[in-house]
Amino acid sequence: MKNSNKYTIGLDYGTNSVRALLVDVRNGKEIAESVYPYEHGVKGVVLGRDPNLARQHPADYLKGAAVTIKKVLAEAQKKIKAFSADQVIGLGVDTTGSTPMPVDANGNALTDQKCFANNPDAMAWLWKDHTGVAEAEEISRLAKKMRPQYLAKCGGTYSSEWFFSKILHCLRVAPKVFDAAYLWVEIADWIPAVLTGTQHPDRLTVGVCAAGHKAMYNETWGGYPDEKFLGKLSPKLAALRSHLCSKTHSVDTKAGCLCKEWAKKTGLPEGIPVAVGAFDAHLGAIGCGISEGTLVKIIGTSTCDITIVSNKKPLKDIPGLCGVVNGSVLPGYYGLEAGQSAVGDIFNWFVDYIQPAKGLLDHKKMDEAASKLKPGESGLIALDWNNGNRTVLVDQRLTGLLLGQTLYTSPAEIYRALVEATAYGALTIINRFEEYGVKIKQVINCGGISEKSALTMQIYADVTGRPMKVSRSAQTCALGAAIAGAVVAGKAAGGYDSFASAQKAMTGVKAKVFKPNAKAHAVYKKLYALYKTLHDAFGTPDWNGNLYSVMKELIDIREKTRK
Amino acid sequence: MKNSNKYTIGLDYGTNSVRALLVDVRNGKEIAESVYPYEHGVKGVVLGRDPNLARQHPADYLKGAAVTIKKVLAEAQKKIKAFSADQVIGLGVDTTGSTPMPVDANGNALTDQKCFANNPDAMAWLWKDHTGVAEAEEISRLAKKMRPQYLAKCGGTYSSEWFFSKILHCLRVAPKVFDAAYLWVEIADWIPAVLTGTQHPDRLTVGVCAAGHKAMYNETWGGYPDEKFLGKLSPKLAALRSHLCSKTHSVDTKAGCLCKEWAKKTGLPEGIPVAVGAFDAHLGAIGCGISEGTLVKIIGTSTCDITIVSNKKPLKDIPGLCGVVNGSVLPGYYGLEAGQSAVGDIFNWFVDYIQPAKGLLDHKKMDEAASKLKPGESGLIALDWNNGNRTVLVDQRLTGLLLGQTLYTSPAEIYRALVEATAYGALTIINRFEEYGVKIKQVINCGGISEKSALTMQIYADVTGRPMKVSRSAQTCALGAAIAGAVVAGKAAGGYDSFASAQKAMTGVKAKVFKPNAKAHAVYKKLYALYKTLHDAFGTPDWNGNLYSVMKELIDIREKTRK
Repeated sequence: MKNSNKYTIGLDYGTNSVRALLVDVRNGKEIAESVYPYEHGVKGVVLGRDPNLARQHPADYLKGAAVTIKKVLAEAQKKIKAFSADQVIGLGVDTTGSTPMPVDANGNALTDQKCFANNPDAMAWLWKDHTGVAEAEEISRLAKKMRPQYLAKCGGTYSSEWFFSKILHCLRVAPKVFDAAYLWVEIADWIPAVLTGTQHPDRLTVGVCAAGHKAMYNETWGGYPDEKFLGKLSPKLAALRSHLCSKTHSVDTKAGCLCKEWAKKTGLPEGIPVAVGAFDAHLGAIGCGISEGTLVKIIGTSTCDITIVSNKKPLKDIPGLCGVVNGSVLPGYYGLEAGQSAVGDIFNWFVDYIQPAKGLLDHKKMDEAASKLKPGESGLIALDWNNGNRTVLVDQRLTGLLLGQTLYTSPAEIYRALVEATAYGALTIINRFEEYGVKIKQVINCGGISEKSALTMQIYADVTGRPMKVSRSAQTCALGAAIAGAVVAGKAAGGYDSFASAQKAMTGVKAKVFKPNAKAHAVYKKLYALYKTLHDAFGTPDWNGNLYSVMKELIDIREKTRK
Repeated sequence: MKNSNKYTIGLDYGTNSVRALLVDVRNGKEIAESVYPYEHGVKGVVLGRDPNLARQHPADYLKGAAVTIKKVLAEAQKKIKAFSADQVIGLGVDTTGSTPMPVDANGNALTDQKCFANNPDAMAWLWKDHTGVAEAEEISRLAKKMRPQYLAKCGGTYSSEWFFSKILHCLRVAPKVFDAAYLWVEIADWIPAVLTGTQHPDRLTVGVCAAGHKAMYNETWGGYPDEKFLGKLSPKLAALRSHLCSKTHSVDTKAGCLCKEWAKKTGLPEGIPVAVGAFDAHLGAIGCGISEGTLVKIIGTSTCDITIVSNKKPLKDIPGLCGVVNGSVLPGYYGLEAGQSAVGDIFNWFVDYIQPAKGLLDHKKMDEAASKLKPGESGLIALDWNNGNRTVLVDQRLTGLLLGQTLYTSPAEIYRALVEATAYGALTIINRFEEYGVKIKQVINCGGISEKSALTMQIYADVTGRPMKVSRSAQTCALGAAIAGAVVAGKAAGGYDSFASAQKAMTGVKAKVFKPNAKAHAVYKKLYALYKTLHDAFGTPDWNGNLYSVMKELIDIREKTRK
């Protein structure tokens, strides 16, 4: 009774848990799903007295893989009588990042050693660990002076969330851990390596996504930052460079094949290929069906905006992007990453911190109330900077702004203004791409807000004047990882010979497309001009002008709309 | 057992009710108080289908006087055994305004006539009636062209709330009423006139307060606007001018003496003097103890800021004031009026419309929570323009602004920022006075907010760097009217021969003075500079510059404060 269908599994390592998704290779149908919340720390995050500290225990990653894979296999068996684990032909892995961890000379976690077992510095340094703020500033300062090209590819500032800030901080505050580490590896690389028994530094396969976006890796300057540069930060950092892989790979490359130990631990067939790992957003973009001309917006608490451009022609630098990395999403393309520092987080702030309307309006009710308003009717305009501005200003030292309040301004009006502000932020990113010749032909959204808030999607359509598509899958990151598994498995094994063919079969968008309303778009064109004025007046040092007309134009628009 | 103490009564005509206050002339002690809510309309205001329409029935004024005076006499009798009504030596009246009403050739209300009894156009046109918007614009336009000096004394724009806008509107929409009216009289003049039987146009005594502040009356151009000017608006308006009194008076003048009819209706002795009426804020300033160098701030939903300057020297125009009228507060002084369009109304908006913190924080609790914050700690700054800006910008087409929000900004932080914004607005008014040579040596506050919100008073002290005093009386308007009663009664009758001596005896401030904290003031100096930048950038057409440093400075201040 066994059928000939093939399946792959995507492992999606998030901040609090790991998810396994078992997917039908023919059509991307999601057959089974399992989530394992990490055991260590608070909701999987090991905290310290310093509020900037956020670590994860590597043991959670491995236990999570074993538990969730076994569960999805069992679940698939339950759903499909004819299912058998040997129909699973490949695996892919996506993770948060930059989340580097120190490993020993065999590529094993330092936490395996008794003396480091509970030492947070020896664990994985989670993306949102900000202990390396001072080191990030030091790196940025040095790069600005010595290697400005390094920063041009990553938004002009090196972040405390990134690879070298964390390693340098460890070197400074936990020299014993640093000295015990032979190498630092992104978990996006380490997890596939462990599954395939290739974690030994000599055998390790490193993905370009993490290296390129977070560790200043670029082929044009010979890979990682040069020894001289790292040596200025610390001679030990310069010495570490020789242990780092000189080559990196896209997700069409195998990290290796599932080793015997992990075949046993998971119930999967030994020897099936595991793709090189990449960040969640990048594999999420693949799961959304990204191709040249497509902007994928992953909208959650913040956004990650990803598009790709053929690498056949050189790409000029686009100021304000978070990163431009050859092959970071798909092989053969530059992966271009932009983002908004806060979207859902702003709505959450208003609902959870301000708790307006006696706290009676949750997000859903707020959406309903705000949906009844017309564009421009409230007379409000806001800037979406409560958490700074990632793209295009790359400036953390910016804050929110709300303008146009009267004595009758209602919570729903403010909520709508906040949603609109994030839409203006989204349009500013699209415009930046296009100003530099990167044409955006379609926008595909994914992530919680795109699923839950029709109001947000409609406003995005009306503000940008573009249809907003929403990814069919609610688990685009895991789906993208599963697609990578299908591609590294190859056509002969029942997978695909290219991402294009795999995406064609396995991804799609929902039938409901949010189309721009011409009348609303006309109003938003005027409002966006005001947003842009405020954006430039408060966000750029060179703007010069007067804002006398801003409130008056808002009142004019309000009065016209209400008539 | 009869004692020789003397008393006066202040009648305070508000928007919803009239209050009588019986005061001990020796010391201003408030012996008895009675409030009469008007019977007509909704809470005393007759409304129409047009939301701009707000009228009052003159019968309510008269019934209110009779009821409340009788009650305070009875109340005083109860409290003071030896009290007798003939110890009341004078009366004063304050009212809202501009609240003009049409009267017949005998000075009686048109509503006395059956055909007009229920016609809102024949009633008093309450201060907040805005039906004359178009007419106000017409008057402003004409004055700008033809008589710019008229506007220089009243803030640059003639308001729809004022005398001629209302009369001209009546002329246009209710010609029958207009034609039936021999004259239009402010209720501040009409009520004392009725009480003294002097309402006949030949005997009528008109106060300078209403005429000067709302009807462009000024001795320097011969009283009311000239016939040529009024004729351009309508020949009928020009004709009306000849019925208007050519002379006006300060509150040291008797409107007349209590007539027999009203002595009977109230139980007061016939023949006691009744002072010329004036607006609530102006008599309130007297009740607060105003003198040259004192700024009286009446802080309620909006503010009225009043100071006086000796009229012995000519006063140059101060741009942005609401009005400059010789004798409008005290004889011998220019009355200078400024104001903030919204203060308590902004706090009410936040608490009642936004209903933050699940609506659990009322004003009192919000005050408590905001009191725990340090200046600059929130990183927020706001503009107090939710209802436009009266002084110094005189611009209704302005709106609120809040800046500096993060993902953790709390309701109490916003509330405090709103209070601070009104303090910055208050300081801007003080600065304007002083820039034009009107020295402010002390500030006395009165009105609900000064009584209820210690937070607000302390912030005002810290922002302005000046002690904030609070009037001892909670009924400064009625007290001011009672003081006027004591002055027109004269020393011989047991009253006073001057306002200075009457105020010295009858007014005072509370023991608790809010003194500026030097450290807080230093922070607020920096914050005020940012407020002023925003104020000028959004509020003035000629400002030119950049706002790039605003958010960054707020973050700097926030970080320093939190350290």
